[in-house]
Amino acid sequence: MPETFDTLTTRLAEIQDLRKTGAILFWDQQTKMPGAGAAGRAEQLATLHRMAHELFVSEETGRLLEGLRSYEDSLDPASDEASLIRVTRQDYEKAARVPAELESELTRAASHGVQDWVTARETSDFARFLPALERNVELKLRYVECFEPQGERYDVLLDDYERGMTAAEVRTIFDRLKEELVPLIAEIAERDDPSLEEVTRGTFPVERQRELCHDVIRRFGMRPDSWRLDPTEHPFASGAGVDDIRLTTHYHDDTLEALFATMHEYGHGLYEHGVDPALDRTPLGSGVSLGLHESQSRMWENLVGRSRPFWRYLYPTLRETFPEQLGSVELERFLRAINRVHPSLIRIHADEVTYNMHVILRFELEQEIVNGRVELKDLPAEWNRRMHEYLGIEVPDDAHGVLQDVHWAGGGIGYFPTYSLGNVISVQIWERVREDLPGLEEGFERGEFAPLREWLGEHLHRYGRKFSPKETIIKVAGGPIDPEPYLRYLRAKHGADGSL
Amino acid sequence: MPETFDTLTTRLAEIQDLRKTGAILFWDQQTKMPGAGAAGRAEQLATLHRMAHELFVSEETGRLLEGLRSYEDSLDPASDEASLIRVTRQDYEKAARVPAELESELTRAASHGVQDWVTARETSDFARFLPALERNVELKLRYVECFEPQGERYDVLLDDYERGMTAAEVRTIFDRLKEELVPLIAEIAERDDPSLEEVTRGTFPVERQRELCHDVIRRFGMRPDSWRLDPTEHPFASGAGVDDIRLTTHYHDDTLEALFATMHEYGHGLYEHGVDPALDRTPLGSGVSLGLHESQSRMWENLVGRSRPFWRYLYPTLRETFPEQLGSVELERFLRAINRVHPSLIRIHADEVTYNMHVILRFELEQEIVNGRVELKDLPAEWNRRMHEYLGIEVPDDAHGVLQDVHWAGGGIGYFPTYSLGNVISVQIWERVREDLPGLEEGFERGEFAPLREWLGEHLHRYGRKFSPKETIIKVAGGPIDPEPYLRYLRAKHGADGSL
Repeated sequence: MPETFDTLTTRLAEIQDLRKTGAILFWDQQTKMPGAGAAGRAEQLATLHRMAHELFVSEETGRLLEGLRSYEDSLDPASDEASLIRVTRQDYEKAARVPAELESELTRAASHGVQDWVTARETSDFARFLPALERNVELKLRYVECFEPQGERYDVLLDDYERGMTAAEVRTIFDRLKEELVPLIAEIAERDDPSLEEVTRGTFPVERQRELCHDVIRRFGMRPDSWRLDPTEHPFASGAGVDDIRLTTHYHDDTLEALFATMHEYGHGLYEHGVDPALDRTPLGSGVSLGLHESQSRMWENLVGRSRPFWRYLYPTLRETFPEQLGSVELERFLRAINRVHPSLIRIHADEVTYNMHVILRFELEQEIVNGRVELKDLPAEWNRRMHEYLGIEVPDDAHGVLQDVHWAGGGIGYFPTYSLGNVISVQIWERVREDLPGLEEGFERGEFAPLREWLGEHLHRYGRKFSPKETIIKVAGGPIDPEPYLRYLRAKHGADGSL
Repeated sequence: MPETFDTLTTRLAEIQDLRKTGAILFWDQQTKMPGAGAAGRAEQLATLHRMAHELFVSEETGRLLEGLRSYEDSLDPASDEASLIRVTRQDYEKAARVPAELESELTRAASHGVQDWVTARETSDFARFLPALERNVELKLRYVECFEPQGERYDVLLDDYERGMTAAEVRTIFDRLKEELVPLIAEIAERDDPSLEEVTRGTFPVERQRELCHDVIRRFGMRPDSWRLDPTEHPFASGAGVDDIRLTTHYHDDTLEALFATMHEYGHGLYEHGVDPALDRTPLGSGVSLGLHESQSRMWENLVGRSRPFWRYLYPTLRETFPEQLGSVELERFLRAINRVHPSLIRIHADEVTYNMHVILRFELEQEIVNGRVELKDLPAEWNRRMHEYLGIEVPDDAHGVLQDVHWAGGGIGYFPTYSLGNVISVQIWERVREDLPGLEEGFERGEFAPLREWLGEHLHRYGRKFSPKETIIKVAGGPIDPEPYLRYLRAKHGADGSL
């Protein structure tokens, strides 16, 4: 092994230390930090981000990578070493194209954008947010121009979250989803099942929810010496490495959403925890793309966490936990309630069917924005028009419409589609797991989650970022991304003759 | 203001961001981190430490400081700007003398030393710890050699914790303490007051202790939007800046030590919180020395927290909190118990009188070590001999003797004396506060702590590291360090006619 390789891995390990430190600082900010610490924390995060970025894009990294070409050629491309050089080179070639000044303007605009968005959403005042959005979009277009034109502008942005995927590929998948889902949603809407809140009585005390959420992820296989679960405003999963996984959730005493959010974040956490420890402290040491990541969170939240076998197992415990609230609710009624499909205004509260329409709407608007086909001031009207067209509902104000998500405020254009790509991929993987493990769902009825966990570790998690997202999907799902299994699943579960 | 000054402050702010980030990572490690995260965390902390150090000692810092000499001369030496240049130059001249390789060996040896110490203490096996101690001492002596010989070797080590103070100065103070305290302790020992555990009944449930500790620091003036208090193994105070203060304590259900530890850490936190916000993100933005810092923690723990006026105010609340445990204990008996002076084995559990003898013993041994007058293998015997001489007690094993503290394991030689210097300074300051605020202690009886808090902010905290420790002591206490007020206080409180 050439000395250059050691020098590179040492450098990358330090960069990774800075990035993981940033992750812990962000986690701390969202879960523990006293409020007045915000200004100082913003500076600390900016410094860590800038230092990691500067170290990574420095000419020294480029020289090291260049010096390793012949070593790389001598290796099995599937080896850790070849993958590290290959993926790092891809990362480097992207990052080095962005001038330092633009990089720091993007960071600053994102930070200001989030601040303005908070105020704008509180007062449902889109005009208050418009200048920050304009600035973010202007900078994102400058970012796009840093790259050789190859396909659509949007491809460059999408590539940051789902490397190698194009807007055209997403459109093909989403058009197919839309074609099936709009009529499916209309069909289900006529059933008008009651919601969980309508079938239960009283509130769900937060402390009991908290214990339940910890209990459920322990049953899933969470080891307390490597994981935490804490309350926060907007749930996320993060961590400092394979052995330090931080899940968060938000407890509302009028719903059980925290439990589903916890199972969702468990899926993210399990992916990070399952990466081969040999890849820790390298740029390969995390999930390969947001789409693949979301496939894991959606799997534990929906394919496990809203399934009949799982609730056959857990429902007695849930009823014991909340005897007043659920004592008179039979399992079947509970299952229907937690799987209710019902058009609604807010993406993060949406059910597993209509959720995709929220995403498709955003993906379509993002393309219009990036291609200059919509004036930003007209976004609220465009948003509301599509909400009516896709979900048949009226948006009462922008706080419940175009202002509901933080993503655009923070410069995250091209991020949304990965949510529905995750849904699609989750069922492709699920079909493979069920082929390999015929007794999988019967096992859930007995609380056996290790087979699923281990299958995912073996076929997906351990790879980290060694292979491209597309290669990884083929490895784990046996073929390229394909919406048909997901559509079959939704129809079979939620359609007219749906079995739940 | 020259551009060079801006460049310097920007650079120092980034370094400070890295240091504060390290502080939060350490806090997280001690309070929140899942155990398996330890290996990754050690790497992250090492990277942050190394980067901050390298940035600071780089030639660029030296050039900037050199370029600012004429600007500095044009300024009022008491201005923030002149102080920043002056103190940074002192820091730089010290740090730049230490070769990077020695610096990283010191860090590594300290880290291994702590690991070995944990095992050695658990098994009370000094031989297990000896090689790590030898390595630490060897490196510390190499560290001393980086500096021009001026006085004693020990001065170089002490200077890292109490800048500008010499071993000879400490000896003068400690010899005076010893002269008075050894007979005073013998005199008190004959009284043999009962301990708190002996006068109370049953245990103190941890959850009620937790609420009490939060309640007490809120009464002291802690603002929840800038502070936290969390449980940990060994209490400490830390934070990310003036607006993000993290206190920790350790709850034992058989004592109220957590409460006194909390008041102690409150004193440290208040000092950091009270530094002029204009000094945040600069090297001046923290307490000036460990001795001054300890003066603040000891003040809130002992001069406030074990005083009659304070307990006249708080005792009804304490009894309501623990009615079974304290219901039959009158205030006077409680006060005697929490102020009991009684020779014991473990420094961190010692009372305010005997505590100093633990420190003096360590200070004396440290000088023997640094001057090569004791073989390290003989330390246990030397320790035990002095424990008998100073406190009249026998040491049953090294876990309760020479192995009890982590400091030497982590390379902290020269640190211990600052604990007793803090005691000495605390009473010097206290005398000044009482002169300026005649109604101070009557105020405590009514729960009025703002006058003390504000006096300390005005006369000490706000300065941060602007002035040297010696200048700072003169500013706040009206004269140089002097053990007499402290000795008068101890005699008046604990002596034969002591008033408590």
